[in-house]
Amino acid sequence: MEKFMKLALKLAKKGAGRVSPNPLVGAVIVKDGKIISTGYHKRYGDFHAERSAILNAKTSLEGSTLFVNLEPCCHHGKTPPCTDLIIESKISQVYVSILDPNPLVNGKGVDILRKNGIKVHVGLLEREASYLNRVFIKYITKKTPYVALKAAMTLDGFICDNLGKSKWITKNNFNISHNLRNFFTAIMVGAKTVLKDNPQLTCRNGGRNPIRIILDYEGKLAGKNFNVFDNHSRTIVFSSRCEKYNGVECYPETRPEDILERLYSLNIDSVLIEGGASVLSQFYDFSDELHLFYAPKVFGRGLSAFSEFEKYIDEEFDLKIRKIRRLKNEFYLEVIKNVYGNY
Amino acid sequence: MEKFMKLALKLAKKGAGRVSPNPLVGAVIVKDGKIISTGYHKRYGDFHAERSAILNAKTSLEGSTLFVNLEPCCHHGKTPPCTDLIIESKISQVYVSILDPNPLVNGKGVDILRKNGIKVHVGLLEREASYLNRVFIKYITKKTPYVALKAAMTLDGFICDNLGKSKWITKNNFNISHNLRNFFTAIMVGAKTVLKDNPQLTCRNGGRNPIRIILDYEGKLAGKNFNVFDNHSRTIVFSSRCEKYNGVECYPETRPEDILERLYSLNIDSVLIEGGASVLSQFYDFSDELHLFYAPKVFGRGLSAFSEFEKYIDEEFDLKIRKIRRLKNEFYLEVIKNVYGNY
Repeated sequence: MEKFMKLALKLAKKGAGRVSPNPLVGAVIVKDGKIISTGYHKRYGDFHAERSAILNAKTSLEGSTLFVNLEPCCHHGKTPPCTDLIIESKISQVYVSILDPNPLVNGKGVDILRKNGIKVHVGLLEREASYLNRVFIKYITKKTPYVALKAAMTLDGFICDNLGKSKWITKNNFNISHNLRNFFTAIMVGAKTVLKDNPQLTCRNGGRNPIRIILDYEGKLAGKNFNVFDNHSRTIVFSSRCEKYNGVECYPETRPEDILERLYSLNIDSVLIEGGASVLSQFYDFSDELHLFYAPKVFGRGLSAFSEFEKYIDEEFDLKIRKIRRLKNEFYLEVIKNVYGNY
Repeated sequence: MEKFMKLALKLAKKGAGRVSPNPLVGAVIVKDGKIISTGYHKRYGDFHAERSAILNAKTSLEGSTLFVNLEPCCHHGKTPPCTDLIIESKISQVYVSILDPNPLVNGKGVDILRKNGIKVHVGLLEREASYLNRVFIKYITKKTPYVALKAAMTLDGFICDNLGKSKWITKNNFNISHNLRNFFTAIMVGAKTVLKDNPQLTCRNGGRNPIRIILDYEGKLAGKNFNVFDNHSRTIVFSSRCEKYNGVECYPETRPEDILERLYSLNIDSVLIEGGASVLSQFYDFSDELHLFYAPKVFGRGLSAFSEFEKYIDEEFDLKIRKIRRLKNEFYLEVIKNVYGNY
């Protein structure tokens, strides 16, 4: 059973960066132990995974089993309810990893299937499935975007040496970094990072470009030709000087909580914050996960990633190290702060 | 072949903390594919590994093969030359991982064996064997102790919060820490660490206690009842105020290079430096490896492990991450700075 759900999860991931603010969903249909069809939610507005798998099938689905990592929908959205189609197709059994986190739906899709004589099992690979849709779960249940922080630092925690240089502390993070840029809907940096590095903030390993969010509270970048203002992706500025920003989407919020509220109202479900220290520090308390890259360097003194706050040893940190991965002579740490769902 | 040498290395390790300043050596004797005897160097002054294995044997060694991780000695030291005994015992083949690094011996033991008709193979598990005896190799070839630094820090590199508290940043390092205290001959801390934590600096997981070295340049600790002055182990103080230190072994050196020279003259082959920031910083440039423990905490601001020097991104760091090990919700990093031998 697990191997079919694993495949569903793998398919679901292929939608990363394209389905926001929808969840990532994959579906696998099995009959007599053989996979007869698969599908996934490819892009916002496209068919849901279940619909796609059902329509892809070349043979009758009567008596087959459907594996899907999220509870099938039972309401009319952009597409008709998947539950209807499942029932019509005479699928006899459905494995669901997690229920729809939306409290208005939560369990209703499963109820409808069961009322129609379909055997439904909930919970297969629940942890993997909640983790995969952590952005969606937070966005739906907390009504605020999921926030990830990213920093590259020395073994002693510096993102910049004392001459202000940060290029390049780590050298082997390209793929993970650009996967993150594809995975999260938006990417955020402060004005200082733009002034110093003039980054493009695009995804350059085949994914789609994230929406670029620039925190330029004082309007220092307005009217200038920085790469973040090119046409490779949508750019949103937060500034108390929006009047200087002709033709650029600009909002007046400057407090982290207000900025996140604005992003939620713009249907932006997630944001990856790439620095510098000032922005990382401001958003730390609002963040859900950290992506830390460490290089085999020791600066002794320099700029610390979170140098604008001060916490003490006796506080509760509630950080969980989820992944440690070696990247040649460097390493990468994924740390989870807030858990939405069971993972 | 490898499995026999692996066993020799495993046996060799059992001498850790007891044979200094001798090397760690294990020996395995094999005949007709079966292990017929083993031995290792147990304690300074005791039999060498080869001698021990040969004397342990219950059957004739004629035609057997000896596996030993270091070239057998050919000179009269505390014990007669092992080469003589190997020849007498009619062992016909010897596998050696590495030659004796002592330039006065290097290869001579092997030559004597070969001249006596014994087939000798050098280089089996060379890397593992050089790594195991990195302390011995440095001590013999560079005539200065091997220096290891140890620190426990937050994910952003702080060993202390800004209230000065460091107890306890990490919680899961007990076994590795005490293995290190057993492995290295001496342990060093600064006066501030003694004043703040009053540590015992003993090995409390079954190993032997290291020699304690206290850097108390100004003589602040003299005449006081700190744990480091108890009788659990030898304690050596470095201070410009040795006259205040009645009955304690005290030397006047206060520069790292002079302290290390003194330790060499005392036959101390290795030292583990456990902090604080001042001592770690002073000895960084003289160090050979780092043992870093990271806890899932983020202080933002605090005391950095190496805060008394400043290095820049364009410098050569030459740090090699040798090991990353997860310790529950923390992790441990072994970083090699200087390589002696081939590992």
